[in-house]
Amino acid sequence: MRDAYIIGAGQTPFGSMPDRSYRSLFLTAFERAVESVPHGIDEDEIDEAVIGSLGVGGRQLGLSGPAATEHLGLHGIPSSRIENACAASGYSVRQAVQAVKSGMADVALAGGVEVMTDMSGDMTKYWLGVSGETEWERLTGTTFAGVYAQMASAYLDRYDATREHLSMVAVKNHANGAKNPNAHLGFECSLDDAMSAPDVAHPLNLYHCCPTSDGAAAVLVASEDVVDEYTEEPVRVAGVGASSERVGLFQREEYTTIASSRRAGETAYDRAGLGASDIDFAEVHDCFAIAELLAYEDLGFCDPGGAPQLLDDGVTDLDGDLPVNASGGLKSKGHPIGATGAGQIAEAFKQLRGKAGERQVEDPTYGLTHNVGGSGGAAVVHILEREVGR
Amino acid sequence: MRDAYIIGAGQTPFGSMPDRSYRSLFLTAFERAVESVPHGIDEDEIDEAVIGSLGVGGRQLGLSGPAATEHLGLHGIPSSRIENACAASGYSVRQAVQAVKSGMADVALAGGVEVMTDMSGDMTKYWLGVSGETEWERLTGTTFAGVYAQMASAYLDRYDATREHLSMVAVKNHANGAKNPNAHLGFECSLDDAMSAPDVAHPLNLYHCCPTSDGAAAVLVASEDVVDEYTEEPVRVAGVGASSERVGLFQREEYTTIASSRRAGETAYDRAGLGASDIDFAEVHDCFAIAELLAYEDLGFCDPGGAPQLLDDGVTDLDGDLPVNASGGLKSKGHPIGATGAGQIAEAFKQLRGKAGERQVEDPTYGLTHNVGGSGGAAVVHILEREVGR
Repeated sequence: MRDAYIIGAGQTPFGSMPDRSYRSLFLTAFERAVESVPHGIDEDEIDEAVIGSLGVGGRQLGLSGPAATEHLGLHGIPSSRIENACAASGYSVRQAVQAVKSGMADVALAGGVEVMTDMSGDMTKYWLGVSGETEWERLTGTTFAGVYAQMASAYLDRYDATREHLSMVAVKNHANGAKNPNAHLGFECSLDDAMSAPDVAHPLNLYHCCPTSDGAAAVLVASEDVVDEYTEEPVRVAGVGASSERVGLFQREEYTTIASSRRAGETAYDRAGLGASDIDFAEVHDCFAIAELLAYEDLGFCDPGGAPQLLDDGVTDLDGDLPVNASGGLKSKGHPIGATGAGQIAEAFKQLRGKAGERQVEDPTYGLTHNVGGSGGAAVVHILEREVGR
Repeated sequence: MRDAYIIGAGQTPFGSMPDRSYRSLFLTAFERAVESVPHGIDEDEIDEAVIGSLGVGGRQLGLSGPAATEHLGLHGIPSSRIENACAASGYSVRQAVQAVKSGMADVALAGGVEVMTDMSGDMTKYWLGVSGETEWERLTGTTFAGVYAQMASAYLDRYDATREHLSMVAVKNHANGAKNPNAHLGFECSLDDAMSAPDVAHPLNLYHCCPTSDGAAAVLVASEDVVDEYTEEPVRVAGVGASSERVGLFQREEYTTIASSRRAGETAYDRAGLGASDIDFAEVHDCFAIAELLAYEDLGFCDPGGAPQLLDDGVTDLDGDLPVNASGGLKSKGHPIGATGAGQIAEAFKQLRGKAGERQVEDPTYGLTHNVGGSGGAAVVHILEREVGR
C-alpha cells in the first residue's frame, strides 16, 4: 500500500483560553498547519477530515466534525469526529493515514480540539470522568488521578523507585516547556518545588499531574503520489500502531504496565522495520508522572523497572541520548484532551524539520509519539521519519 | 487498492429497551453478525473496530469504543468511537472499508449503538439537540422536527406536492416494517391515520416523524485477500461516498435538497461505475417523511420535484421497480441514532443474500444505503453488490 507523509502540522498555544470557541481554536491550528506546508496548499486539495475531540462541555457534541470543517472553509468533504478520550487525535492522525493508504484520499486533515476551562471544576470533573470506566470506577468516585495513583503505588512498591523519580519527570518536562512558546505552564520548577507540592492522590502530588488546558492541533497527511507537490522535506509515517485494553484498571492483570501502549509500540516498530534503539526522540503521554515512567518501559526504551535509572542518568533529558517530551509534555505544554495526540505529532514534525528552536533535539531522523486514552483503554504510537534528499 | 467485502452483518431488534446497556445491545448485534458469516469467524481474526455512537445519556462518553469491544471479548485491537450524529455508523462502515483498503486490517468490525429510552423526555431532547447547530439553532429553541418542518414547508411550496405525499411515506414504511420482526413500530397504518395524527411541527405530524429507539447493529468488513475464507456469497462494497454540508439550515442556499446527500451519492455512483438506474433497492434516511422525498431526488431516483410522482406511481413500494425502505425505514423500523447507518447496511446485506423473508425484494444485485447526520451536516452512501459465482 502506498506511503503516507506529513506535509504540514501546527497547533495553537495550549493554555487557559475560556473565551475561545472550539471552532476558533481549530481554525488557528489549521492555519498554522497550512502555513507550514513549504509549497502551500489550497483548501480544495484537502479530500477528507477527521477531528478528535471528547466534546468536553457538550455544546456541539454531535456533528462537531462538519461544524469545525465548515468554519475552516472546507465545504462538502467527508468530515467526522473520532473519540477515544485523551487519544482521540492520535487516532485521528492514524485514521487520516488509513484514508490516504486506502486510496480514498490524497490529502487528509487530522487534528483535535478541546475547550475545558470555560466551566466549573465540578463540570470539568464530570467531563473527565466520563472517560473512566463508568460503572465501576467513575460512579464509585474514582478520579483519573486516583487511577494513576494506584499505578504509581504499585510501581513504587514493585521496583527500586521513589517519589523523587516522579518529581524528576516534572522538573525535566517543565525545563523543556520553558523553552516552548506554546506551553501552558511554560516555567521551570525545582526538584524541591516538585517534591513539596500538595498531594492530589497519594503518591501523586500537584507537580505529578498535568493541567487542564484548552487548545487545538492540526496535521496534514498526504499520499506518496502527491507529496512532491507540497514539499521537498516531507516527514514519512514510517509506522503506526494502535491497541486497546480493558478500560477499568481493576480488570487488568498488572498495574505497572499499560498493555495497550506496549502492543501499539510493538506494531509501530514492526511496521516501520525499526526497534526502540533507532528512535532519536519521543513525545510520550505523561498525563501523570508515573505514566512517563511506564511509557519508557512499554515502548522498549528500557526493561521493566528500568525507568528510574534512565531518569537518574539523564538519558531522556533534552541533551540526553533519547530526549523525551522536548515539548514539555502534557505536564508543562498542557493537555487539551482531544488536541494532545495531534499536538505531539505537530511537535515531532517541527523537531524533524529542525525548527524547534531552543528545545531542538540534535539532528533527529526518527521521532516517536505515544498517545494514551484514559488510563490505557486506548493507545496509539506513530513513528515519523525525516526523509533526506527526496 | 484492494476491494472490501461485507462478510457478515446483524442487528438487535430496534425498540424501547431501557433496561439494556449499550454494551449488552452491541454484543447482541455482534453475535448476530458473527452468526451470519457462512464459514464462521474467530474473534482473533478481527483486526480492528470502530463503533458509531452519539453517546446519548453521556454515561460512557469517553472510550466507549474500547469499552464495547472488551465486552465482546475482542482484546487489544485498535478500537475507537466515531461520531457524526445520526450518520455515525454509516461513517463507521466507511472507516472499516478504509482500514481494509489501506492494508492495515484484513477484517474490520464496524457498527453502532444507542440507548435513548432510559431517560426523561427533556434529556432526550437535549441529547438530540446537541447534533443541531448549537449556537444559532439549538440555543434559539429549534428542534430537529422544526428544522425538517422548514424543509417540508419549502418543498410543499415549491413543488406540486401535498401533505398526503408525506403521509404516503409513513403508510409505505409501516407496511414494510410490519413484515420486519426487528422493527420498533412494526404495525401498519392507513392513510387516514397518517393524515389525522397530531401536529409535531407543522406541516409534519406524528406519523411524519420517526420514533426514539434503542438498538445496535454490527457489520464485518473483509479484504479481497481473505474474503474466500469466510464466504462464497460475499457482498462487495462497490462504492462509498461521503460528504458534509453547513450544519445550520439557515446557512444553506436551498432548503429543498440536502447537498451532502447529493455529493455522497455522486461519489458512490462514480466509484462503483454505476448510475441511479442500476440500483435495485435502497434504504434511505427517512428521519422525517420529507427526508425520504428529498433522498429520492438527491440520490438521482428522479429529478428535483419528482418525488411525489414516484410515490403516486408506487415505484418505491415493496413490489415497485425500486423498493425504498423495505425494512420499514427509520419511521417504522426505528432510529437508534448511532446504530441506524450500520442497521441499513445489515438490511441491505440480508436483502442481497435473499434472506429478508416477507419483505424480500425481488432478486437484487445492487442495493444502496443512505445515512444522514442531523439535518444533512453529514451524509454517507454505500452501494453494495451481490457477487454471483465468486
